[in-house]
Amino acid sequence: MTTNRRILLARRPQGQVQEEDLRFVEEPLAPLQDGHVRFRNRYISLDPATRGWMDDKASYMQPIPIDGVMLSAGVAEVIESKLDGWEKGDIVSALFGWEEYPTLNAQQLKMGRRAGKYALPLSYELGVLGGNGLTAYIGLHKIGQPKAGETVVVSAASGGVGSIVGQLAKLHGCRVVGITGGAEKARRLIDELGFDAVVDYKEGNLYQDLRAACPSGVDVYFDNVGGEILDTVLTRINVHARVVLCGAISQINEETLPPGPKNYIRLLARRARMEGFITLDYAREWVEISDKIAAHVLDGDIRVLEEVVDGIEAIPNAFARLFRGEKIGKLVVKVS
Amino acid sequence: MTTNRRILLARRPQGQVQEEDLRFVEEPLAPLQDGHVRFRNRYISLDPATRGWMDDKASYMQPIPIDGVMLSAGVAEVIESKLDGWEKGDIVSALFGWEEYPTLNAQQLKMGRRAGKYALPLSYELGVLGGNGLTAYIGLHKIGQPKAGETVVVSAASGGVGSIVGQLAKLHGCRVVGITGGAEKARRLIDELGFDAVVDYKEGNLYQDLRAACPSGVDVYFDNVGGEILDTVLTRINVHARVVLCGAISQINEETLPPGPKNYIRLLARRARMEGFITLDYAREWVEISDKIAAHVLDGDIRVLEEVVDGIEAIPNAFARLFRGEKIGKLVVKVS
Repeated sequence: MTTNRRILLARRPQGQVQEEDLRFVEEPLAPLQDGHVRFRNRYISLDPATRGWMDDKASYMQPIPIDGVMLSAGVAEVIESKLDGWEKGDIVSALFGWEEYPTLNAQQLKMGRRAGKYALPLSYELGVLGGNGLTAYIGLHKIGQPKAGETVVVSAASGGVGSIVGQLAKLHGCRVVGITGGAEKARRLIDELGFDAVVDYKEGNLYQDLRAACPSGVDVYFDNVGGEILDTVLTRINVHARVVLCGAISQINEETLPPGPKNYIRLLARRARMEGFITLDYAREWVEISDKIAAHVLDGDIRVLEEVVDGIEAIPNAFARLFRGEKIGKLVVKVS
Repeated sequence: MTTNRRILLARRPQGQVQEEDLRFVEEPLAPLQDGHVRFRNRYISLDPATRGWMDDKASYMQPIPIDGVMLSAGVAEVIESKLDGWEKGDIVSALFGWEEYPTLNAQQLKMGRRAGKYALPLSYELGVLGGNGLTAYIGLHKIGQPKAGETVVVSAASGGVGSIVGQLAKLHGCRVVGITGGAEKARRLIDELGFDAVVDYKEGNLYQDLRAACPSGVDVYFDNVGGEILDTVLTRINVHARVVLCGAISQINEETLPPGPKNYIRLLARRARMEGFITLDYAREWVEISDKIAAHVLDGDIRVLEEVVDGIEAIPNAFARLFRGEKIGKLVVKVS
């Protein structure tokens, strides 16, 4: 254990992420300094949010520097500690570098949390029990505030967040309509996750299919994609509808912002609202929310869609794939 | 009193309203039927909302039919009543036709209210004491929810709604920035209404001027215009900002919807919301709110910007002018 295999940011992406924007290196591992904790990475989460940090733009996060290690949520095990409160064997979920042996200081660990307390696979800590689950729950319940019997529509419905949003809304007594691309994804949403209807945006007519799937209109729209799909759903919103802005995958790769949703104007006559959120604002409720979700998973009321790819070296290809819609559910990397 | 001078919808406007879209007629007045009340119109309000009812589109109001009488808020006096509860001399604010002698039934009167109880000009019932005041108050306080010390930006700031929004926000302890077009309007907002700063969108650079006028960003934006101005303000919103969608004058004349605000995406990182409303949803609070506003006007804390044009015949020209920004404050027609 003297070398560290890592993925660095080679250059800032122009539009869509290319494998060449990342590079793989093996570097010697420096001795651990006081006040630091060294980890062995177990699972790395591949998330659209990381794409935003690759641009040289101020956001809620500092941009990743060129030649800096790439970053996302991960779950890792302490292998050496020179910081009080952390011991060998502790399992932690935090922002970790895309590397075999990340090293964190106290400041960085503040945003982390103890993991591994549920009798569930450790990779779930990065999805349903981690950011995806929190995002789904907070976006749906705190921002969307659905009532039983209302129609909830979610886009990127077979994704890590969307698949949980739909199942949480079903558990809440809502009619749930997923928007997804492809027959296989559509089938699994209906058959495995219990969605009431699915609109395949790659087939048919989005407007008409959405209308047919939502005969009583849309009360809550959980938007993971932006663009054309958001614009179309806005034409079907009910009075006092709530549009939850979660991600905008269709926009995140654009060099210049595309036109906004022209039907935002429907918010006016429908007295509806469109609202963004980040889970950080609800940090005090994280444990409680994850406990609730874990109970649903253990009961079988929430089923987990997950794809696991193997090894640090597989990241550049898998990460680029994330933006092409070529996966079902949460995409995680098992660090060998 | 045997003829009725009226303004009818001659044809559906193509884009911007033209004087020729309206026509003036003199028609004989039929005898009053049971269950109806006849009025002498005193003041007619000219509002952007009427433009929406001229299109053949479903909305919260039925479209005005071709050759139907045009419609807006008005204040009128009962001259003959064949309906219990209404007597000669009663002053009523309601939706009235653009005509000298409107006739309403019980159903139509349900949306009306008794007027004239304040020691203020009767025309104010159509502006600060009527829809404009309610729109300003409800939009600002129920949707915008500003806190003292926050920065409130309002567009169409010298208009009937905007001028009240700004003054209400000042009374609430906010920093108030108006967006308006033209030096004369800008001057009056600062000198007469006490705005802290004004951005003239017809001069200089909107983005830079807005940035200079809002050094601490924007907490509440009361949007009366949509389009480019909304898009620019979105770039300056603070975390948890509230964008109040009130009107969209810049869009209301468009045949096909223009692109939406591309910076709506800022709502995401800023965890902000954009929300529409209509005052009807708060009908139970109307009297209380108007009483509050009347007290401010009587105290001199709210100053009224108003332009009065004379006579039914003047309407087609004045109504077209409404959409060209060529007026300051509330535009009303005094029925001779």
